[in-house]
Amino acid sequence: MAKTIMGKIRSNTQGEGGATLGTYLFDCLKKEGVTEVFGVPGDYNFTLFDTLEEYEGVKMVPARNELNGGYAADGYARVKGLAALITTFGVGELSAVNAIAGAYSENVPIVHIVGSPKSQKQKQQKLMHHTLMDGDFDAFRRVYEPISAYTAILTPDNAMAEIPKAISIAKRTKKPVYLSVALDLVQQPLTMKAPKPEEAKTNDSSLKSASKHARKMLKSAKQVLLLSDAQVKSWKWEPLVRALAEQLQIPVASTIMGKGGFDESHPNHIGTYGGKTGNESVSKAVDDSDCLIIAGYVPSDTNLGGEGSEPNPKKTIVIHPESTIVGGQIYADIRGEDMLRELAALGLTAELPVPAADRPYNSGTQLDGSHPLKAKEYYPLIQRLLQPGDIVIAETGTLAYGLSQVQLPQGATYIAQGGWQSIGYATPATLGACIAAPKRRVLLFTGDGSLQMTVQELSSMMAYGCKPIIFVLNNRGYTIEKHLNFRTPPHNQPYNEIPGWNYLKLIEAFGGHAYTERVRTIGELARAFRDAELQRSDKLCLIEMVVPDDMDAPEYLRQVSSEMEKQENKSKK
Amino acid sequence: MAKTIMGKIRSNTQGEGGATLGTYLFDCLKKEGVTEVFGVPGDYNFTLFDTLEEYEGVKMVPARNELNGGYAADGYARVKGLAALITTFGVGELSAVNAIAGAYSENVPIVHIVGSPKSQKQKQQKLMHHTLMDGDFDAFRRVYEPISAYTAILTPDNAMAEIPKAISIAKRTKKPVYLSVALDLVQQPLTMKAPKPEEAKTNDSSLKSASKHARKMLKSAKQVLLLSDAQVKSWKWEPLVRALAEQLQIPVASTIMGKGGFDESHPNHIGTYGGKTGNESVSKAVDDSDCLIIAGYVPSDTNLGGEGSEPNPKKTIVIHPESTIVGGQIYADIRGEDMLRELAALGLTAELPVPAADRPYNSGTQLDGSHPLKAKEYYPLIQRLLQPGDIVIAETGTLAYGLSQVQLPQGATYIAQGGWQSIGYATPATLGACIAAPKRRVLLFTGDGSLQMTVQELSSMMAYGCKPIIFVLNNRGYTIEKHLNFRTPPHNQPYNEIPGWNYLKLIEAFGGHAYTERVRTIGELARAFRDAELQRSDKLCLIEMVVPDDMDAPEYLRQVSSEMEKQENKSKK
Repeated sequence: MAKTIMGKIRSNTQGEGGATLGTYLFDCLKKEGVTEVFGVPGDYNFTLFDTLEEYEGVKMVPARNELNGGYAADGYARVKGLAALITTFGVGELSAVNAIAGAYSENVPIVHIVGSPKSQKQKQQKLMHHTLMDGDFDAFRRVYEPISAYTAILTPDNAMAEIPKAISIAKRTKKPVYLSVALDLVQQPLTMKAPKPEEAKTNDSSLKSASKHARKMLKSAKQVLLLSDAQVKSWKWEPLVRALAEQLQIPVASTIMGKGGFDESHPNHIGTYGGKTGNESVSKAVDDSDCLIIAGYVPSDTNLGGEGSEPNPKKTIVIHPESTIVGGQIYADIRGEDMLRELAALGLTAELPVPAADRPYNSGTQLDGSHPLKAKEYYPLIQRLLQPGDIVIAETGTLAYGLSQVQLPQGATYIAQGGWQSIGYATPATLGACIAAPKRRVLLFTGDGSLQMTVQELSSMMAYGCKPIIFVLNNRGYTIEKHLNFRTPPHNQPYNEIPGWNYLKLIEAFGGHAYTERVRTIGELARAFRDAELQRSDKLCLIEMVVPDDMDAPEYLRQVSSEMEKQENKSKK
Repeated sequence: MAKTIMGKIRSNTQGEGGATLGTYLFDCLKKEGVTEVFGVPGDYNFTLFDTLEEYEGVKMVPARNELNGGYAADGYARVKGLAALITTFGVGELSAVNAIAGAYSENVPIVHIVGSPKSQKQKQQKLMHHTLMDGDFDAFRRVYEPISAYTAILTPDNAMAEIPKAISIAKRTKKPVYLSVALDLVQQPLTMKAPKPEEAKTNDSSLKSASKHARKMLKSAKQVLLLSDAQVKSWKWEPLVRALAEQLQIPVASTIMGKGGFDESHPNHIGTYGGKTGNESVSKAVDDSDCLIIAGYVPSDTNLGGEGSEPNPKKTIVIHPESTIVGGQIYADIRGEDMLRELAALGLTAELPVPAADRPYNSGTQLDGSHPLKAKEYYPLIQRLLQPGDIVIAETGTLAYGLSQVQLPQGATYIAQGGWQSIGYATPATLGACIAAPKRRVLLFTGDGSLQMTVQELSSMMAYGCKPIIFVLNNRGYTIEKHLNFRTPPHNQPYNEIPGWNYLKLIEAFGGHAYTERVRTIGELARAFRDAELQRSDKLCLIEMVVPDDMDAPEYLRQVSSEMEKQENKSKK
């Protein structure tokens, strides 16, 4: 009964007039703006890729391995709102677990599609290659259960219900979903009409109660401050949060995980909040405020500056995607969007003016080009070189700490794993971002240890026409780890050393063309950046920043490390 | 109460006299011959690595990422019998899932140790970095549950019970086990004595019944044949299987997954069995026999040559690690070792002589050195160049099919994922094998697509003094996949193409030294192999084999592909 696919398919028929499970799946993804799918082939997903090869409007972008494919999908979703990944049963899907768990933790929706062995073999519990050799074909779905918002095994009978349902859950929860389909079912015609998936709705009475409570708190407050946190980015609340801040005329600070979710060139934006660490003037403003609105709150250890920096619940209005908490009281079934609109519509305005922002890397003085590269000087330079509309990707490590304090220009997109913090993420995520936004300038800042983890995606970027500017910070090891393991002196941590690579030679080894430069001073970095700007329309650019001091790091990281040590000593007493 | 570790620790004290959880763990591993542990650092496993840094007799070998570390541990365990891997919570452990699932499928025991957040933070369900941001610290252990023989969360109270138990289960089941320990508990003193773990024992009456039944079958058979399958390797049954074959004077064939488990230079060995595909004379011998002893049976699709090649249960004696099946009847609670000894002690001998082996790559004629590289000619050359005691590592792909038909010399160890077949496995596994057996010659045969997946371990090998000879088959794509997707012509499968790398330049990019050569003819390959043999005491050797025909593959793979097509057409009728 399988329909042979001949020629390009222009199916948007939603299952009528000859759509197969595979074409319907790609129809649903295309409708959500997913025009590229990341993945790696394997013999159980051939029919998915064969279908895609003939399908018009969605194309495959291969990654060099599945973990990297998952990271690329994550980067893509952060730019376009949704992404898809295709892997093969067992050996493929299980390489992507870390990427999918990261997307779960960070609220990034990815539709992960796995091609599985023939349905008949599964029913017969045959021992097939890529299985655990125990006849259990459900084991890998169970692996994915704790890290997916939804899992389903697709058949021609259920695809028109399960696919829209899964995509709808991914969009609502901003989490990955897992769909598995047997090799032989992909090209089968569909046999059921689709029911309409349910959408989350706000409970009006709950909204009214929350609004009344919030109005009372806001009216009696002298200094209201808005914290723009992680979920603002995932749920795309930027315009609503800006409208609220403008209406209330209050200062806005971003959290580490929320960075890039509020326009940092906006006059109300005062900087990034780091609790007991980070920018002191921002911490003071937060501490001084007697009412805090937190939009999209994720109170993780590394987000708010550690133990003891959590704001007093009695003073806060927390807006979650599906609930709001006012002064510690939970109001359920309120969509965050509705709550943000409701607060803006209260007609209140602040009594005090927004304080001036104190940006740590706003250096008025001319940098001395002959200085060897040091965090203290290259971050101000990076801040100056950023342009409106840039996509800035920060790898976990010293760079994520430093870049969190850099003021982003208008329209910039900032991509970093603020909570999951899996090193190696940023390079494949750059592939994803470049594919998602081929016309925007993409800047990747990565460390040497991180790059080594997922380096092969430099090859994919060159092969598939991506032209980011990549900065590789060469400090000869996992410098971040050396700072965080304050219990042991760095020279006693040989496990934090890495082999010394010739990063510029990677380009040739990967058979590509790129602009490459190795820089050691502030002047060389500025020049290389200028040259890269001239070259980047033609090719990928790779700038290796060699720093003389392995332990050099932004001031913020030193504060974090010393704060951790303080906490540790306190807990021992 | 935490004991500070000063100077080298020589603890073998099993928890008495100041052992901590960490030193006790390494004591237990060292006792099993695990003198190297693979891993990647992260801030939740610092105390594990700090302990290891000071510990005498076990050292850390860092991999460039956790998937590769897992594969390296797998390669190490295949040589030494047991391996250990240390990763960090979430972001680290979840990158190793595919490697651990592969070890589960292939019966390779690995002790996977995860460093997790401080115990207090876990109890308080704090939102920590590297978590799902939902306060659930058990989610990743649940991810590992379907792919581990045992999982446990270690504490000072339970470590002396859980660690020996987990290691004992890993050794008995030949599967990976999962142990997680909080950052702050690693250096705590132990607080409980260890109970003795139970061992599997043979039930004597079950053994006697099985023996009686088997004796009857063997006595009435005219032509008995022994199939040496996968579990012979995992359970190290080689000497027992050899003794049985010699006693019975019967021919022995290896399966694809069992290859290397029986000495292929032994006069009783007649070749590798491939069912309807592969070596015809071996298939005929198996078909002609009226009684088949299968030692360590894993009847997976790719092991026995696909559908319809499974032997008749009524004619077989199947010896599993903990049971035996005679003529379809199951006898439980029999250790495989005991059954093998029992059969040898029956005092029976075969009526017919062992037939002569027909080796497909035993080419008597001189190869023409000017010929461009073709599978038909380079496999016979490889067979000639192998030496007794070699470790031969075959990557999944066309190479695994071809090498399965090469006759191995005496004492050779053959490493391949016959069932799991995760491409990318072989390169990191080579790191593991080199570390496990620094004095043996290690030969890696990998394809270009596979190498790209996990290429960074070339760097680890050079950094940590490994000197394998590596053959990279450059056929510009996933040639195996093109053959297996017989439904679609290869030129319609752009997803099976890969970027063209300059493989020899990788050495320089990774900052290492190696002997490198690119060869295109049989003569060049022979010369490069000779040169590598002269250089390999000093450095790693990398030989790139450029084949003119992308689709060139061993005859065996063509047979498999055409057999699959036949099956497919049959199932459509």
